[in-house]
Amino acid sequence: MIFRSDVEAARTRIGSRVRTTPVLHTGGLWLKLEQFQHTGSFKARGAFNRILAAAEQGALPAVGVIAASGGNAGLAAAHAAREIGIPAEVYVPETAPEVKVARLRALGASVVQAGREYAEAYEAATKRVADTGALFCHAYDQPEICAGQGTVALELEEQTGGVDTVLVAVGGGGLMAGIAAALEGRSRVVAVEPRDCPSFHAALAAGQPVDAEVSGVAADSLGARRTGDIAFTVARRTGVRSLLVGDDDVVAARRALWEGYRIAIEHGTAAAYAALLTGAYRPSPGERVAVICCGANTDPADLTERH
Amino acid sequence: MIFRSDVEAARTRIGSRVRTTPVLHTGGLWLKLEQFQHTGSFKARGAFNRILAAAEQGALPAVGVIAASGGNAGLAAAHAAREIGIPAEVYVPETAPEVKVARLRALGASVVQAGREYAEAYEAATKRVADTGALFCHAYDQPEICAGQGTVALELEEQTGGVDTVLVAVGGGGLMAGIAAALEGRSRVVAVEPRDCPSFHAALAAGQPVDAEVSGVAADSLGARRTGDIAFTVARRTGVRSLLVGDDDVVAARRALWEGYRIAIEHGTAAAYAALLTGAYRPSPGERVAVICCGANTDPADLTERH
Repeated sequence: MIFRSDVEAARTRIGSRVRTTPVLHTGGLWLKLEQFQHTGSFKARGAFNRILAAAEQGALPAVGVIAASGGNAGLAAAHAAREIGIPAEVYVPETAPEVKVARLRALGASVVQAGREYAEAYEAATKRVADTGALFCHAYDQPEICAGQGTVALELEEQTGGVDTVLVAVGGGGLMAGIAAALEGRSRVVAVEPRDCPSFHAALAAGQPVDAEVSGVAADSLGARRTGDIAFTVARRTGVRSLLVGDDDVVAARRALWEGYRIAIEHGTAAAYAALLTGAYRPSPGERVAVICCGANTDPADLTERH
Repeated sequence: MIFRSDVEAARTRIGSRVRTTPVLHTGGLWLKLEQFQHTGSFKARGAFNRILAAAEQGALPAVGVIAASGGNAGLAAAHAAREIGIPAEVYVPETAPEVKVARLRALGASVVQAGREYAEAYEAATKRVADTGALFCHAYDQPEICAGQGTVALELEEQTGGVDTVLVAVGGGGLMAGIAAALEGRSRVVAVEPRDCPSFHAALAAGQPVDAEVSGVAADSLGARRTGDIAFTVARRTGVRSLLVGDDDVVAARRALWEGYRIAIEHGTAAAYAALLTGAYRPSPGERVAVICCGANTDPADLTERH
């Protein structure tokens, strides 16, 4: 469980180790351009908070940190560890694309390829944590990770003077949890998922986190099969609303952000904007709405019409 | 000739018809993200100012505006005319790519293909202006155009509290002129060109605008063969400094902005950042430097390493 005070503490702790990302205000809408963050997504916020919180408590082992992710969470853990000056070991499946492995290595991480699926890499990582005493950086379901991600909402609040509604794409729910905790009682938070990655929607329907089938264009960033416990608890407490959009809507939203604004983001991120474009979320007249553009670890080659 | 007061008047005139584009502050550097402007470049500022200034003087003909450009200036004129509710006719060479013609038409412009080179399209446009009394929107060499572009510097000043130095890429010089006029006596302005598009550098060397050979990766946006008279006069008066960078540096700078920040811009724009990366411009310790990211009408397909 986390609260706004945890997010405020995270912000103090992280300080200038993360970029204050700008907002673009246009047509009554605020776009929070968090894709400009170190390593291309919001995940750097949580990784720094996790590691620095451990250091504060004298619980940062010299052996360093371990993460299990071939995506944004792995990049963020590797970056944060390098900046803080400790080793990082990142577990990915043997099927991870070479370009992702190379990117992790370029950030100084040791990459361990284990198993054929993410779940196996995750198991290997947790076993290694137990064996070595390294600090585990979960991709979303740890209080310090969630609180760190939430710092993006404190920035947004200062930059906009506060908004009525924040639309955010949801995978495992770490970012949603942090934002919902930060803005509890202040702003409505709307969690948007592709219909083919509906873990949070399924959790709300079931009354608890449950496994969901995940696939589609955004599965690489939003494909967590089960919403985190922290995310679910915070979302229920704060009344986060869940919306679904189609993969076609996600593709169209991503292209619309390029065509209309020259903003390049990954498919998962575009889900949040798709909720506006499709009318899945319809703001009231005068409603102050923000969309979190949370990542751009994408190949921009298919942004233009000729592709 | 233009002065800061002209830029201030332009800003009042244009009002909220252009986007206030955000800045990203990172590592002591400010990146002004003007590529998010309507139609993907700063050119919308000048086009609105040119048309609205004519309207103020009762000199806006019902026949509308004419521009000669298959690039950013044409898009901006078409957009501004449509927003203001008058026709736009845009002259391009017969060799203009279909995608550019389609984009102009999508903005509601009549596209006239005339001649095999830009110079011939320009001649046809000016003849048509003489025949019809339409308002000509030059790509760079009109006071209202230059003053409009300069409004980006007034925004930058407010957003940063003022900087010591502004690095800006230069084609015909309209943006440079506007910025230099806006920041005269306040900030140093450094004009950066690719060695293969050295019109401004050649003008300074010759003591007046002269024709230069233009080619290379940035020629589509910076390929004006001759610096505008206004740009030259303002640059001399305000002491704009000229720097050259190589095409390879431009390509590397464009990729570095993607790799490090997930900012996608066109080659011409990247020239300004290249001056920093190469050390062609070396800031003093503590110097406050801004780079204008002025356009992103680019195919982002070649931003990633696999291309």
